[in-house]
Amino acid sequence: MSHPASVADLGEFGLIRRLAGAVAVRTAPALAPGLKLGIGDDAAVWAPTPGAWSVITTDALVEDVHFRLGTTDWYDLGWKSLAVNLSDAAAMGAQPRYAVVSVGLAGDLPLEAVDAFYRGMADLAARHDTLLVGGDTVRAPCLAITVTVVGETRPAAPGEAPPLLRRAAGRPGDAVAVTGDLGASAGGLRLLEGARPPGGTAADHAALVAAHRRPSPRVAAAGVLLDAGVRCGMDLSDGLLSDAERLGEASAVGVVLEAARLPLAPALVATYGDAALALALAGGEDYELLCAGPADVLARARAALAARGGPPLTVVGRLVPLEPDAPRVRVVDAAGAPLVVEGGWSHFGGAE
Amino acid sequence: MSHPASVADLGEFGLIRRLAGAVAVRTAPALAPGLKLGIGDDAAVWAPTPGAWSVITTDALVEDVHFRLGTTDWYDLGWKSLAVNLSDAAAMGAQPRYAVVSVGLAGDLPLEAVDAFYRGMADLAARHDTLLVGGDTVRAPCLAITVTVVGETRPAAPGEAPPLLRRAAGRPGDAVAVTGDLGASAGGLRLLEGARPPGGTAADHAALVAAHRRPSPRVAAAGVLLDAGVRCGMDLSDGLLSDAERLGEASAVGVVLEAARLPLAPALVATYGDAALALALAGGEDYELLCAGPADVLARARAALAARGGPPLTVVGRLVPLEPDAPRVRVVDAAGAPLVVEGGWSHFGGAE
Repeated sequence: MSHPASVADLGEFGLIRRLAGAVAVRTAPALAPGLKLGIGDDAAVWAPTPGAWSVITTDALVEDVHFRLGTTDWYDLGWKSLAVNLSDAAAMGAQPRYAVVSVGLAGDLPLEAVDAFYRGMADLAARHDTLLVGGDTVRAPCLAITVTVVGETRPAAPGEAPPLLRRAAGRPGDAVAVTGDLGASAGGLRLLEGARPPGGTAADHAALVAAHRRPSPRVAAAGVLLDAGVRCGMDLSDGLLSDAERLGEASAVGVVLEAARLPLAPALVATYGDAALALALAGGEDYELLCAGPADVLARARAALAARGGPPLTVVGRLVPLEPDAPRVRVVDAAGAPLVVEGGWSHFGGAE
Repeated sequence: MSHPASVADLGEFGLIRRLAGAVAVRTAPALAPGLKLGIGDDAAVWAPTPGAWSVITTDALVEDVHFRLGTTDWYDLGWKSLAVNLSDAAAMGAQPRYAVVSVGLAGDLPLEAVDAFYRGMADLAARHDTLLVGGDTVRAPCLAITVTVVGETRPAAPGEAPPLLRRAAGRPGDAVAVTGDLGASAGGLRLLEGARPPGGTAADHAALVAAHRRPSPRVAAAGVLLDAGVRCGMDLSDGLLSDAERLGEASAVGVVLEAARLPLAPALVATYGDAALALALAGGEDYELLCAGPADVLARARAALAARGGPPLTVVGRLVPLEPDAPRVRVVDAAGAPLVVEGGWSHFGGAE
């Protein structure tokens, strides 16, 4: 054929060659001193940094479960598929290094769609010094994308283990903080699903939609937190309430969140008013960092982030001893009285 | 609920806890001196072996494209999903170490099915000193499984790079060899799809079906090949003809295969007679190793495999200078005359 238009026209090996070429453009050797073999053999190969530990994380996005083609374009879909995984690496305090992607798609998909998808991935990868080193592209009756990211910790100091951000490292008395602001992605999704915005300007709405479509994983900020001495952290993917529950469970503590302290995205407040709080608590897909530590450590981290042009770090609550029969996570108002808010979402619709 | 029966009853986090528990049973510390964090945080963490390089590979299996639930059970599906990835790691000469799995499945899937799937993965993982360290389980309208395996090479000798099996390391004059025998998996698939076997006993048919359902990745054999000095190799997943094309392309050589030398699976010959050859050449999913090297190196490798109870290594052809206008891969009969055989399969149905 002279002019392939769809995935089927090109064939699997043709597609791999095309993508390897597209990705290679962005594979500057300076980015990857350790890469020994990229796309084209049975596996990619690299030399780990001496003294560093490796991390691995994987996440899948499925059409009509995690995204809709009516509300995203292919470039953004590629971006986001990688972003959620970079965010998980950052959530350990690790620098993501290498990514592989497996895509199941229909044979009649136009090649422009596939190209845009990989361009979105490659652009985000380049921003975070991460390389796409392989993958698998298969025909499938439903569109499903799985990305796996391998990263590495900072090298260990002599006689020590490399530093990590752990969910289990929280202690009663720790302050709880989040980077950036919350709820914009959930507000953007609501707009994309056709909800009529109760308020806000077109610029507000565009900001919310952008937050939903192109999240910025907090890779650099996670490193700053570690350097400041923070050791407890995770990323916010399922919503603050749901993720605080995970952190509290791993650390065997309770979590008290003060609603008045939550850094609500300004565009979210402008658009949704009083409903902004629930979106910030339960909306999900913020891809900010949730962390805990002594108040002075968090203050140092906040200053260090500010000095480097990083996101704000806002204390939103504290870890407390777990009391019998008390809920793991409590949301209180400015006077300390309990608020009741709907929980995070369940992937299977079951009880969480 | 008192007695969860389906994925939806349990919820995502319940499912993760259940699987983490099931996998932990098989996570003996002796298997994983380097593992620092398994399932339960944002990513798994391990300490790489000093001097070794890391490899990563990913492969997806999609229902009704790569498998049918009518012809496999869940245990075998778990086994095979991991096997195809361990085979890719072995194809580099690497020891697989860690695996993550992403599964998209229906919410009403019985938990017994999920349990059997992970049991199949875990049993195969344990055989090859590989650990399941994480994953993602999502609701999806079609059943899709993506496994990513990270492994490591042998540590490098001082001043040298670690040894690898490369597709690109073949040279004209090299002999070409395969481990084990060929075609059994393709023969088994034909039986599973309801084809009436022209011959063979029930035991023959069972052997073919078993080869299709539970392939044995050649992890240990790959190490023996490397130690014997073999440096060119890959695994056979798409069929000998198709994979020889890839190896020849990467090494910029032609490949001559001698049909009479192919190690046809005995049960395949018993069942399919004269049709066995085409299945061995083009059938795919053998998960044997295809390698190339000087004849004396391959002879040493064969003896070393035999001494360790490994699979046979059979010379099936040779690499030749690529001639203009000649096909990359030629199959010849015992007299050296060309044979014409149908090619491997295309994932998208396009021209390969």
